Amino acid sequence: MKTEHDLNERGFASDNYAGVHPDVMAALVAANGGHQVAYGADVYTARLQEVMARHFGDDIEAFPVFNGTGANVVGLQAMLPRWGAVIAATTAHINVDEGGAPERVGGFKILNVVTPDGKLTPELVDTEAWGFGDEHRAQPGVVSITQSTELGTLYTVKEIKELADHAHSLGLKLHLDGSRLSNAAAALGVSLREMTTDAGVDVLSLGGTKNGAMLAEAVVVMNPEAAEGLPYVRKYTMQLSSKMRFVAAQLIALYEGELWLENARHANAMARRLRDGVEAGLADGSIKGVEFTQDTYVNGNFAVLPEGVADVLREKFRFYDWDAARREVRWMCSFDTSETDVDAFVAAIAEATTG
Amino acid sequence: MKTEHDLNERGFASDNYAGVHPDVMAALVAANGGHQVAYGADVYTARLQEVMARHFGDDIEAFPVFNGTGANVVGLQAMLPRWGAVIAATTAHINVDEGGAPERVGGFKILNVVTPDGKLTPELVDTEAWGFGDEHRAQPGVVSITQSTELGTLYTVKEIKELADHAHSLGLKLHLDGSRLSNAAAALGVSLREMTTDAGVDVLSLGGTKNGAMLAEAVVVMNPEAAEGLPYVRKYTMQLSSKMRFVAAQLIALYEGELWLENARHANAMARRLRDGVEAGLADGSIKGVEFTQDTYVNGNFAVLPEGVADVLREKFRFYDWDAARREVRWMCSFDTSETDVDAFVAAIAEATTG
Amino acid sequence: MKTEHDLNERGFASDNYAGVHPDVMAALVAANGGHQVAYGADVYTARLQEVMARHFGDDIEAFPVFNGTGANVVGLQAMLPRWGAVIAATTAHINVDEGGAPERVGGFKILNVVTPDGKLTPELVDTEAWGFGDEHRAQPGVVSITQSTELGTLYTVKEIKELADHAHSLGLKLHLDGSRLSNAAAALGVSLREMTTDAGVDVLSLGGTKNGAMLAEAVVVMNPEAAEGLPYVRKYTMQLSSKMRFVAAQLIALYEGELWLENARHANAMARRLRDGVEAGLADGSIKGVEFTQDTYVNGNFAVLPEGVADVLREKFRFYDWDAARREVRWMCSFDTSETDVDAFVAAIAEATTG
Amino acid sequence: MKTEHDLNERGFASDNYAGVHPDVMAALVAANGGHQVAYGADVYTARLQEVMARHFGDDIEAFPVFNGTGANVVGLQAMLPRWGAVIAATTAHINVDEGGAPERVGGFKILNVVTPDGKLTPELVDTEAWGFGDEHRAQPGVVSITQSTELGTLYTVKEIKELADHAHSLGLKLHLDGSRLSNAAAALGVSLREMTTDAGVDVLSLGGTKNGAMLAEAVVVMNPEAAEGLPYVRKYTMQLSSKMRFVAAQLIALYEGELWLENARHANAMARRLRDGVEAGLADGSIKGVEFTQDTYVNGNFAVLPEGVADVLREKFRFYDWDAARREVRWMCSFDTSETDVDAFVAAIAEATTG
Repeated sequence: MKTEHDLNERGFASDNYAGVHPDVMAALVAANGGHQVAYGADVYTARLQEVMARHFGDDIEAFPVFNGTGANVVGLQAMLPRWGAVIAATTAHINVDEGGAPERVGGFKILNVVTPDGKLTPELVDTEAWGFGDEHRAQPGVVSITQSTELGTLYTVKEIKELADHAHSLGLKLHLDGSRLSNAAAALGVSLREMTTDAGVDVLSLGGTKNGAMLAEAVVVMNPEAAEGLPYVRKYTMQLSSKMRFVAAQLIALYEGELWLENARHANAMARRLRDGVEAGLADGSIKGVEFTQDTYVNGNFAVLPEGVADVLREKFRFYDWDAARREVRWMCSFDTSETDVDAFVAAIAEATTG
Repeated sequence: MKTEHDLNERGFASDNYAGVHPDVMAALVAANGGHQVAYGADVYTARLQEVMARHFGDDIEAFPVFNGTGANVVGLQAMLPRWGAVIAATTAHINVDEGGAPERVGGFKILNVVTPDGKLTPELVDTEAWGFGDEHRAQPGVVSITQSTELGTLYTVKEIKELADHAHSLGLKLHLDGSRLSNAAAALGVSLREMTTDAGVDVLSLGGTKNGAMLAEAVVVMNPEAAEGLPYVRKYTMQLSSKMRFVAAQLIALYEGELWLENARHANAMARRLRDGVEAGLADGSIKGVEFTQDTYVNGNFAVLPEGVADVLREKFRFYDWDAARREVRWMCSFDTSETDVDAFVAAIAEATTG
Repeated sequence: MKTEHDLNERGFASDNYAGVHPDVMAALVAANGGHQVAYGADVYTARLQEVMARHFGDDIEAFPVFNGTGANVVGLQAMLPRWGAVIAATTAHINVDEGGAPERVGGFKILNVVTPDGKLTPELVDTEAWGFGDEHRAQPGVVSITQSTELGTLYTVKEIKELADHAHSLGLKLHLDGSRLSNAAAALGVSLREMTTDAGVDVLSLGGTKNGAMLAEAVVVMNPEAAEGLPYVRKYTMQLSSKMRFVAAQLIALYEGELWLENARHANAMARRLRDGVEAGLADGSIKGVEFTQDTYVNGNFAVLPEGVADVLREKFRFYDWDAARREVRWMCSFDTSETDVDAFVAAIAEATTG
Repeated sequence: MKTEHDLNERGFASDNYAGVHPDVMAALVAANGGHQVAYGADVYTARLQEVMARHFGDDIEAFPVFNGTGANVVGLQAMLPRWGAVIAATTAHINVDEGGAPERVGGFKILNVVTPDGKLTPELVDTEAWGFGDEHRAQPGVVSITQSTELGTLYTVKEIKELADHAHSLGLKLHLDGSRLSNAAAALGVSLREMTTDAGVDVLSLGGTKNGAMLAEAVVVMNPEAAEGLPYVRKYTMQLSSKMRFVAAQLIALYEGELWLENARHANAMARRLRDGVEAGLADGSIKGVEFTQDTYVNGNFAVLPEGVADVLREKFRFYDWDAARREVRWMCSFDTSETDVDAFVAAIAEATTG
């Protein structure tokens, strides 16, 4: 098969538009050849356990899966009884971006809570954490948070701890959707463990794909009592890879050294550079009318553009509307976004808003 | 990440134990770099449509998914109303090897039919194709067959046609689980199309993983009226890859040339060589007490071994019990099985049975 | 079996606490004896079709079921594809009172919209009616409203028409949860048909149990193209009664004459009497500190009570908290609430708030 | 509502065609009037617990539901993890007569076993009780038997005990579908408890409807550790009655005295009378060509008729084909079948086969 696309074209649509980091590709090659036991009884999946234990503690167990929706729906099912429900922000990926998989495949209701910034608080949790023992109410069983959030915001370690303590005090478990956990760690300057195991997270969806892998996520169980039957759930939810060594290898490549952190730092830095560039332009008048709607903590920017600007910009760079009604767009950076890409984009914004 | 396994160790456990064909790995590399639209709107997924159309006809549509269970459960859901049921052989992968995914995730009942050889016939279909319009009976909607079957047997093109005609005459659709369709094509000397589109198959699960891919299968819809809402079903069933170009690339690598056929031919030939080697040994007395239970059409052999022999053999070669109660084992060959592997295994069988 | 309860004890907890109207009981007796075909092919279920047709039009079809949750989940499933979602008020019974049945059994997501009064509007529908064709979003397929609402408020016929027109213009269907439709008809002085068939409702859950039946509801399909496979869905959702004549008989007793209307009028009048009594008390100082939170349109009142008052009142009369955090309670009247009951309750409120 | 059917017409189609025993109707009347707490916190549901405890032991808990499919699917869900499967005879009601509800709503696979007479044995259980711990296999968790079976056959108390012991020794639970348990007790001359609690049954579906109730069944949990979350499962499976006193009252009427036994004895005796009448006819030549295919233990007969006879008989009496292909029919008797009914039917058979 030949390369048929432009290797130099990169936009700001999604970290899923990026390809695979060369070290991840090298790991796939290294894992190839010979025979390995299928469905996870291979040396690479075993090695992944060691790598994950170093990050999250010796008592964890990691279950590689194909994608983020899979990680969330597998993990949450294993955390909940059949009659359970999940408390999550209205903006949570599980609530808005998974095509109803949580409800239809997972069988659980999402008790969604409107938030200003994509972040739950103990008080917000309380608005849905009630009705325990009432058979008429889908029983709240899990609080699910996203780190970093779908709005590019961050929980501090202290905030996660408070949520975990609060959830546990109510008999609830804490799930963390960490498809961009690396970006959060890079931004906060804390370890993966500080934000998860040590903060009281029970089960984690650990991202890989958005941070340089090809397709690799993992359900990481911190609290063995918080998840039941995960191997069975992963299988019937169709997230069990036969040649699992290749999923494990991707995660090893990211997490055995610091690649996960370097990629995330780079993506964050590029988003920062974009923000700084646009703000400098706004300050010196070379850019007009762009308003950021969220602070820039990780690898995304959210901004409202003057009318017509988005269309002009999209002739050269891909990105998504976030809230079309108010002309809000989202600009994402990834591990492979270059300074040149950012600078060219800033220049294009300048031209589009003042040209 | 470093290679940590023995590149020269190969057994006879499963075609899923094998790694990835070098051409598939090269395709992954070729698809890398730059940005491509996520979730299937990339040039490689588009190219895959052309490749698949060449094999299956211009009116088909191909939907890449992660694994075989995914392909089956996605395809069958799209073919069935909520109250539908699938008629399949008791030995079908969907009935015995998918952890209840068809029932729990797909929501459909499998009306399973005992067969001598893993193959349905119009007469066997009729034993479950009844009760149409009776609300007390899960409504038969699809006949699902496997080619080549889980027992290594084959449908002729004529047999598939007769099943399709029969199914259609009853208002049923025909689904084909083709996770080893390539092996069947190689064995029968017919094209993929002759066994599927031209024979009246409505929806196909097309295999890649067992034939040299890393993880890549596809639902191929021959009859557009036979499947509804497939993109939605694929998403909520969590089989939608974000960086889909890499799933598509694997299938392109296999199917744009003859790699699919070469790999399958080789695996079949190695199974034949194993059979012939053992039978020669039985004839000349160097092997004793091995009885084959099925003819060898494709890449697997099924045999009953003398007591204790399996344990001895497994010290050097992996393989699975098929029916432990009667000491029946399954020996699978794959695209990377070498003549040396086979000959060493035959020698080991000789030693274990006569030593 | 002997009567073991106090026949004269009645409270204000729920219209489900009431028993069965004597005419309904008589209908059960009249339907008894001899043999009738099971599962709905009996003369009473046939007769029910005629009765329902008189109310809702000749093209409707009525499917008796056991309970209101059953009516909703059966009807909505028949209206939706597997990937569908329902737009409903956050306060809707399907969202808060059905134990997750819509999600777990129905398999559909509820896109819930915060409302001030339990009522959707075209504008509120629009906040969730988007993302058509986007596989990442559970596809909006139905707008579901409740008449009268869970907050005792009412849609005018014009409002229902506007919602129906708006829904249809978006390709959505309109479902009406009418477990208290009779109370609405009585309050608005309109026919059942004006609020449903003529207003553009596609599928209705028609109540019986809350209005004097023992256990009897029906899914009524106004628009035959809006619901598919209802007999199958009713069966697998376990809402198909074997001796259906007895479910049909209850609905015939209510709906063949004016019993449905008389019962509803009476319950509404009792709620009005209660409201008037309390307000008179507030005016003349015999009652203190009670604040009504909703207007009284049908058979319920919502009020905030002074601290401690609810506990005192409950020594004699049962009723539920509605929002315990702000001491809001709900007082429901039913077909068997007497003027004496109401007057005694008003007296008790007076004593509890001023005593 | 007026009676619109012939009170004297009775056939042999099903015990579901019969109406309601007068004592059950009287119980409904006795339970009426006044207010009672909804959803099961009423005095009749409390009284039912006492009645059930007298039959099944003090540690049981009974959960009234609407119908038999409901009882089975609620009970089995509460007994199984999400990844569980049920071993049952191919002819079991859950496998053939519940429209796929076990799979679609319950989410569990039925591992069905072909039996000669509708009865499982430890050996037959073993054919499916394997693969524990293998994530690829839906995990066997429950053995479900029917007493009396769908073929009118019976388990002895000893056989049930052996099945319970065998199931428990494998870590499986035993479920009994007792929609006709009363008929079995009458036939065997044993108490309900001997066949259930004392024999090791963990959870029972106890019938009422087929034995003189209007619509009333119960899930009875003998082993509290064998069922989890039953109140929640009953609610989301939509089997929770709001005015539950009326469901409980029916079961009290049947089970507080000996009505359950009298009704069952009578139905059994009528089936016996029918058998004896036909066999006498065969002996004296007044009836020709009728062959019974099962012994007559309870209230049904299964017979093969000469060609054309069924059609003639059906001009006067309703009954169902059992296996149309071989002209096998089923004749069911119920609590209200009279000797005159039977004698008239025997006479009709004589006329149809020799006339």
